[in-house]
Amino acid sequence: MADKRASGEDSLIARYFKPIATDANAFGLVDDAAILQARGQDLVVTTDAIIEGVHYLASDPPDTVARKALRTNLSDLAAKGAAPAGFVLTLALRTADASWLEPFARALGEDANSFACPLVGGDTVSTPGPVTISITAFGRVPEGTMVRRSGARPGDRIMVTGTIGDAVLGLDILRKGAIAKALAADSKGSEMLIGRYRVPQPRNALAKALRDHASSAMDVSDGLAGDLAKLCAASGVTAVVDTPGIPTSVTAASLLSRGVIGIETLIAGGDDYEILFTVPEAKADAFTEAARQAGISVTAIGTIMAGEGSPRFLDGAGKELALTRLSHSHF
Amino acid sequence: MADKRASGEDSLIARYFKPIATDANAFGLVDDAAILQARGQDLVVTTDAIIEGVHYLASDPPDTVARKALRTNLSDLAAKGAAPAGFVLTLALRTADASWLEPFARALGEDANSFACPLVGGDTVSTPGPVTISITAFGRVPEGTMVRRSGARPGDRIMVTGTIGDAVLGLDILRKGAIAKALAADSKGSEMLIGRYRVPQPRNALAKALRDHASSAMDVSDGLAGDLAKLCAASGVTAVVDTPGIPTSVTAASLLSRGVIGIETLIAGGDDYEILFTVPEAKADAFTEAARQAGISVTAIGTIMAGEGSPRFLDGAGKELALTRLSHSHF
Repeated sequence: MADKRASGEDSLIARYFKPIATDANAFGLVDDAAILQARGQDLVVTTDAIIEGVHYLASDPPDTVARKALRTNLSDLAAKGAAPAGFVLTLALRTADASWLEPFARALGEDANSFACPLVGGDTVSTPGPVTISITAFGRVPEGTMVRRSGARPGDRIMVTGTIGDAVLGLDILRKGAIAKALAADSKGSEMLIGRYRVPQPRNALAKALRDHASSAMDVSDGLAGDLAKLCAASGVTAVVDTPGIPTSVTAASLLSRGVIGIETLIAGGDDYEILFTVPEAKADAFTEAARQAGISVTAIGTIMAGEGSPRFLDGAGKELALTRLSHSHF
Repeated sequence: MADKRASGEDSLIARYFKPIATDANAFGLVDDAAILQARGQDLVVTTDAIIEGVHYLASDPPDTVARKALRTNLSDLAAKGAAPAGFVLTLALRTADASWLEPFARALGEDANSFACPLVGGDTVSTPGPVTISITAFGRVPEGTMVRRSGARPGDRIMVTGTIGDAVLGLDILRKGAIAKALAADSKGSEMLIGRYRVPQPRNALAKALRDHASSAMDVSDGLAGDLAKLCAASGVTAVVDTPGIPTSVTAASLLSRGVIGIETLIAGGDDYEILFTVPEAKADAFTEAARQAGISVTAIGTIMAGEGSPRFLDGAGKELALTRLSHSHF
């Protein structure tokens, strides 16, 4: 398609995204680049893409797709102890469909606003394939204070935010799987789980507490078990997890107790966007108080141990569970 | 696919991309985020995606695809007067095919090295659609010196680097169009044009000269005519271009003189990744000397004028050309 005055891409950007790019350094999205000001801090950069049919369903409402695209990145910033500073968006679309773009851009603007993470630039391109949304997000931390994956030490407490395993159950419901049947009479529980799949709740309120007290952190996106294995590998340690202590929602706990699912479904499922982190014993009380003040629920689930090898997950009797998989991978 | 120890994505990243992520702030790609140090400067951020079948051909060699993905972003940094500082890569693939990934990653590493723009992070995801490569690149400029699109003023000289229109001719050859036939006997010319389509030559050597002397700049990606219209709109001015003065390659000039193509093919074609910029008359001599020292060929093609409306393109007799389109748009 050709337009004598402006390309289709420019009109699309002007119509949908310029109104939400209110940051002065975004130059109204009419320049080739934006400016990021470090303000004497380290800039933390993270990038996460979501693809229609892979990371979200074609039937998911556009407003939840926008929130998921941004929030998966906000979750990474939270895990690194960083305060959001802005993001750039690459949007690959088959068509410029207003009935999708309008609610998408509106919800993106709302989240950008409520998480203080302004849109500063982007690229809108045409694709013959699935809608692909790639976001690179920026955060700020005082110099040298980014919380790494590699700082876990033997004796540290292993902790997680929120509840684990809800999102994978929500996905199963949307795919009309076994959970949909098991929860046929519990529409409130089903809705909660679907919401957990579609709209992550990034724990940015916990960023400062993590920066002040955590020895390591990462966000849980591919499954708690696999992500803990990655954190341990990066830190050169291993771990023991008290599996019954892993926080679950009431709905997930009821599915567990009814035998509809096993614990492996919850801890290898992915899409949680909770934070997995470690806190040295000496800082545990101060951290717990900081988390309480931030209003974020946190739970201790195990202990970092010296040694190599996969983390061990123990049942209520202290016996090691034999997990057949630790996480979800698309390849 | 599931793996008990590490996800397929992690092995893919470790195998192909960790070796080229040599910057200390990339943390060997095993963390959720990287650190960008501003070093007291402004960080310039730009993002550009290329998609198989849209921005490159499925038959293009993987090494040229990697170079194009990075260089389209380097070209934006050059136009903004910024020195490259690093980039993050989002790669959406159907399969983890070593015969494609190996040369892709090797060429990406070579370009990252030669342009001093290290890979600092990324995301590798699975897609059922075309390969999609999204890069967000960072550059540094002394505070407040990013060259904007909006600084062109009446009387400024309009200039471009290199030659215009070669890439669109190269694409036509790869698609076995009219240019392929017209250049059937000129394999050297054909190869040059194909190379111009597949591997842009970003003008990063000119960044400092632009910062010191240009009043506005942008890279030419959607066609010189349309991009000049955007620059004029951002600056609130218009322009007159001496069309016969637009620099073309010998091969393109010969196609023009044989009547195989018109000038519109060259100036509305896109994919040039040259820099379009304006220089105030008082700085023209100093700029020309700086460009000569940088070893980048630059050509004056017109003048910025007061007023609104589309730039006017004049033929050799001073008569305005009626262009039916100014640029390429995928929407």
